[in-house]
Amino acid sequence: MPEPPVKPIEWLEDHIRIIDQRKLPATESYLDLKTAGEVADAITDMALRGAPLIGIAAAMGVALEACNSACDDWEVFSGRVADAIDLLSSTRPTASNLFWALRRMRRSMEKAATTRSPQDCRDAVVAEAVRIFREDLETGMSMGRTGADLIKEGHTLLTHCNAGGLATSGFGTALAPMYFAHSEGRRFSVYADETRPLLQGARLTAWELARAGIEVTVICDSACHLIMARGRVDLILVGADRITLSGDFANKVGTLGVALSARRNGIPFYVVAPTSSIDFQLERGDDIPIEERDSDEITHLSGVRVMPAGVAAYNPAFDVTPAEVVTGFITERGLIGPPFKENLNRIRPEAAQRR
Amino acid sequence: MPEPPVKPIEWLEDHIRIIDQRKLPATESYLDLKTAGEVADAITDMALRGAPLIGIAAAMGVALEACNSACDDWEVFSGRVADAIDLLSSTRPTASNLFWALRRMRRSMEKAATTRSPQDCRDAVVAEAVRIFREDLETGMSMGRTGADLIKEGHTLLTHCNAGGLATSGFGTALAPMYFAHSEGRRFSVYADETRPLLQGARLTAWELARAGIEVTVICDSACHLIMARGRVDLILVGADRITLSGDFANKVGTLGVALSARRNGIPFYVVAPTSSIDFQLERGDDIPIEERDSDEITHLSGVRVMPAGVAAYNPAFDVTPAEVVTGFITERGLIGPPFKENLNRIRPEAAQRR
Repeated sequence: MPEPPVKPIEWLEDHIRIIDQRKLPATESYLDLKTAGEVADAITDMALRGAPLIGIAAAMGVALEACNSACDDWEVFSGRVADAIDLLSSTRPTASNLFWALRRMRRSMEKAATTRSPQDCRDAVVAEAVRIFREDLETGMSMGRTGADLIKEGHTLLTHCNAGGLATSGFGTALAPMYFAHSEGRRFSVYADETRPLLQGARLTAWELARAGIEVTVICDSACHLIMARGRVDLILVGADRITLSGDFANKVGTLGVALSARRNGIPFYVVAPTSSIDFQLERGDDIPIEERDSDEITHLSGVRVMPAGVAAYNPAFDVTPAEVVTGFITERGLIGPPFKENLNRIRPEAAQRR
Repeated sequence: MPEPPVKPIEWLEDHIRIIDQRKLPATESYLDLKTAGEVADAITDMALRGAPLIGIAAAMGVALEACNSACDDWEVFSGRVADAIDLLSSTRPTASNLFWALRRMRRSMEKAATTRSPQDCRDAVVAEAVRIFREDLETGMSMGRTGADLIKEGHTLLTHCNAGGLATSGFGTALAPMYFAHSEGRRFSVYADETRPLLQGARLTAWELARAGIEVTVICDSACHLIMARGRVDLILVGADRITLSGDFANKVGTLGVALSARRNGIPFYVVAPTSSIDFQLERGDDIPIEERDSDEITHLSGVRVMPAGVAAYNPAFDVTPAEVVTGFITERGLIGPPFKENLNRIRPEAAQRR
């Protein structure tokens, strides 16, 4: 297995270590999280973010809680783990992977419950959390290899937010194809939308692409339309927080605008996401709950208030892009083109249906 | 004449006084400018901004230079004033009003040149600068009255950047209809795009609308697409820095994205601008020069570097919206609908053709 470009999370038995993404790019500092509560706070406060990474961290949070509970009484033990799952599932509402990972953790606990042995259950949930992490690494590599074929010598790409190594176990979703094309020796450059309000593009995407030696230029989110209209973008790759069966998908607010300009200018627009981002229960994008975050993220810049006091700010964290403007989905199960409803349903994992 | 909601510029004979817009909304402070050079710096550094206000300030800068030149020798005097015009015309390349105002100043000087009297010329250029200012006040009122009819009780509006009193002599362009509808007693609310990188929406539009008692909510630029897709916007009013004969127009970067979503969602999209923003020499939007500003505006927030060192940022200040997505232009000569080429040409001022 090649080395991932970044290591945003590590399982270290009695704790997990994460990069504190709020401090990047100024400082590369790490947080040690020891309880499910600490993991939940890290997710809510966005010390870590990115749909796949949120799923991995939540799974590890459940595993930490199981290990921390020394009680041998099954009812007490399993109640505490169930509470941890509930707590973690309330952190952020939009990303599909969070609920997908917590369902896997719950099922793994339920299987172990047949023996009613806390120790068996601890072993099972730790193994499952580590498995979710490792699968994500493989998933990133698979999407990277598939997507890399779309990136040609001399291309200019555009991406929104950070769907990179930092959003996952290490290879990324939308950025994984860039890492693989780069390792195959192709030269290309990337426009990174800065991604207001928290600037994941300017802070995180720019940091990890530059670190890997890929040429990156940051633009204000609203400049993407001009750049596309002037013919300066060949390919767009973005991530997804939740994909519905119809192919409508939620991603960081602003993705919809990028997609509309891509469509208008005939620029291929691909969504790169693992199948764990697909919500096989939801039909349409309108049904996706959209997280609204604190208006402080807009009213202040670097701690300085920029807006008049008393004026409100509205801060939706995501938007929904309709399937009709998507060229294709790149998943670990290959490239999915339209008609999306049929083709997404076809890759519905049998295991997921049974579970 | 009703009082304008703000007074961003004042002619005080031997100097002009402007609100330092870079300090808003935290501080309402004023700058006294005494020379054409100081005015040019204020325009370049965006202590004042907004296409009509740039035109007014440049005209006043020429008048200041004429007053400052005590020389009675016509050649020396007129050379100095001509240099001031050249200097001011090099401040910002995109806004039409700057060149329009400087053409008026040059013509006014040329007329006075028949007597070769510096004093006659001083009187003429001061009178012309004050006339440009007063005409802009009347123009704002006229656009305000025309546009106010589009704003209905209970409407939600959206605007981008600041095309308000602060961008003009006091009534604004896109915000003028809001002030008039408000004074007529109608209740409505406004989404203001924050407008990266310099946040004219969050800082200036929010400030002047809230001050006037109009309900305003700030959003990140990229959130406009979600809000429009969810049916939360009834009407869009924006300004323009330069309108071409075809109806394509340049405005603050991001306007194009707003327009594309407006079109997709069937939301009326109006450009509010004086006829001095129309460039009757240019046919198409592709011919408009787009100012590229310093990347520091993107790389730093409130003085704090947010991007990795060594990563580039691209910072175009404007974009170009094609005529086909414009519902209409609101000018001091009324509401102009399509076909724009015919109808814009029809309002071409005879005086402007002759001058």
